[in-house]
Amino acid sequence: MRRRFQASDTVLASFLVAALLLVSGVVGTAMAQEVLPSWNDTAAKTRIMDFVKATTAEGGEGYVVPEDRIAVFDNDGTLWSEQPIYFQFAFMLDRVKTLAPEHPEWQAKEPFKSVLAGDPMGVMKGGEKGIMDLAMTTHAGMTTDQFSKIVTDWFASAKHPKTAKPYDEMTFVPMRELLDYLRANGFKTYIVSGGGVEFMRPMTEKMYGIPPEQVVGSTITTEYAIVGDEPVLNRLPKIDFVDDGAGKPSGINKFIGRKPIFVAGNSDGDYEMLRWVTAKGPSFAMIVHHTDAEREVAYDRNSEIGKLDKALDEAERRNWLVVDMKADWKKVFSFEK
Amino acid sequence: MRRRFQASDTVLASFLVAALLLVSGVVGTAMAQEVLPSWNDTAAKTRIMDFVKATTAEGGEGYVVPEDRIAVFDNDGTLWSEQPIYFQFAFMLDRVKTLAPEHPEWQAKEPFKSVLAGDPMGVMKGGEKGIMDLAMTTHAGMTTDQFSKIVTDWFASAKHPKTAKPYDEMTFVPMRELLDYLRANGFKTYIVSGGGVEFMRPMTEKMYGIPPEQVVGSTITTEYAIVGDEPVLNRLPKIDFVDDGAGKPSGINKFIGRKPIFVAGNSDGDYEMLRWVTAKGPSFAMIVHHTDAEREVAYDRNSEIGKLDKALDEAERRNWLVVDMKADWKKVFSFEK
Repeated sequence: MRRRFQASDTVLASFLVAALLLVSGVVGTAMAQEVLPSWNDTAAKTRIMDFVKATTAEGGEGYVVPEDRIAVFDNDGTLWSEQPIYFQFAFMLDRVKTLAPEHPEWQAKEPFKSVLAGDPMGVMKGGEKGIMDLAMTTHAGMTTDQFSKIVTDWFASAKHPKTAKPYDEMTFVPMRELLDYLRANGFKTYIVSGGGVEFMRPMTEKMYGIPPEQVVGSTITTEYAIVGDEPVLNRLPKIDFVDDGAGKPSGINKFIGRKPIFVAGNSDGDYEMLRWVTAKGPSFAMIVHHTDAEREVAYDRNSEIGKLDKALDEAERRNWLVVDMKADWKKVFSFEK
Repeated sequence: MRRRFQASDTVLASFLVAALLLVSGVVGTAMAQEVLPSWNDTAAKTRIMDFVKATTAEGGEGYVVPEDRIAVFDNDGTLWSEQPIYFQFAFMLDRVKTLAPEHPEWQAKEPFKSVLAGDPMGVMKGGEKGIMDLAMTTHAGMTTDQFSKIVTDWFASAKHPKTAKPYDEMTFVPMRELLDYLRANGFKTYIVSGGGVEFMRPMTEKMYGIPPEQVVGSTITTEYAIVGDEPVLNRLPKIDFVDDGAGKPSGINKFIGRKPIFVAGNSDGDYEMLRWVTAKGPSFAMIVHHTDAEREVAYDRNSEIGKLDKALDEAERRNWLVVDMKADWKKVFSFEK
């Protein structure tokens, strides 16, 4: 049965749609849902929501078409905690311990010796070369599939040194809500981190609802090889790209290929990304300022990890929102009472 | 007015939905639309459709969840024509001619001299170093925004040397239909090309419905800089990554971070990508075989551009579909009568 479509059908269809919405309660449910519930009702929340409303109001002056609604987020210190040490650094130390029985020579050889002696700060003081040795030993020499499994297994068992919680619970609830809120408004959310892309990708979907293809990060070189008759990608001990500082705009350009309109960071490592995203056109930038010594850690200008100095100085002048974790967030972690 | 939701509401809602669909004719329209209309009813079309049906049939043995439905397509010779020369090579030659008035010294200096004398094959015979000189001269030394505009302008004015059509009409209609068909079935479509990523990105949305962030390709190094008070990315004369041959699996892993289940290529430059995608799990691989001397160009094993030899030898053994352009396609280009 197929009838010709007539004007009276439109009226009937409209009526049916309206009836359907009322019956199922869709309208009521959508309107009842609170936006950014873990944010206090301070200026920070208002500024974020004002920007999202402006970019999504069709016909409005600040309207941005959905395909240009790209939002980028730093990871360490912006989406998940980075104190007392970067998660990937903790992974590296644990990995050395796991591999140590196969390498008796490490007991007498730096930087492995410091790691095995439980002295991570000693390792960091050993400088860049030592850390690079550790990174390459623990991040290269296996296939991409094998590394993905190593990372997944580590996240399933490792515990944060301060909270004793699994690392995947160490994400900031208000930031996860912000990701959800942006996505609900047609934004495509990306991570743009100095961390290794293959260290983050196995976890980002579960932790943030961000799929692997929306994770930009530092990379090491991989090499195609045939093992038996099976093609694999081997991870070589060679840095391919460092997605930090001035590297972040290049990383965004390379991986995403268009300029975001929303950016969130927390340290001077995000400074160039903040500058580049906010250079022209409608845009919004925010800095997560770690001000809460009680619920997390308070640090900025003098921290060895996540130093925030230059970006903080310029924030007001450049109209970047500085989020005060203590004042602006009701909650930091999901496990808080 | 907000009522409690009850079982009887579900029945009523279902009825309303059914009535609405009948009235608006949605059901009839969707079913009437022909799939892959420019493909002949040969085994090639059947094999493609069988794979898509299997991966999208919920509860079926070959079902793949939507987020894993990643499809990757080579570009040159797979989505757009690559004969008599790669489009990007034509762009490069045109660009040298455009810039020549500012460079009188080029009249006496190879490889520029051959380009200005209208001898592209002479340039190609000059070997890799000459081509790299041309590439860096024409692709670097400007900002990313400037390069994007140069590319867009070129596509708006340049004509294909054989058909005299604009380059953006030189795409294969059956392949554009295949992209649409896959997307309609929940696949995310990507380009994975040896071509420059920033040469393709300004055009791929318009030509294929593929957004910039779903284009993987070769890259040159970019560098963040402040000009006046404005941050820009400068394109440096330095190759960052070559996304060809064994580079393609690495490129997919780097940019996308998960293994596709559908791959299309046309030359031995796609061999490693074909191998890697089809190594394990449900997957589908196809090779576009250029067999149509009348509507396009017939070439394979002995072609300098888009050589297809090893991949053709192994296609049957590896269960890769070889699409015979002459036999399997009703139409090649949209401008055909």
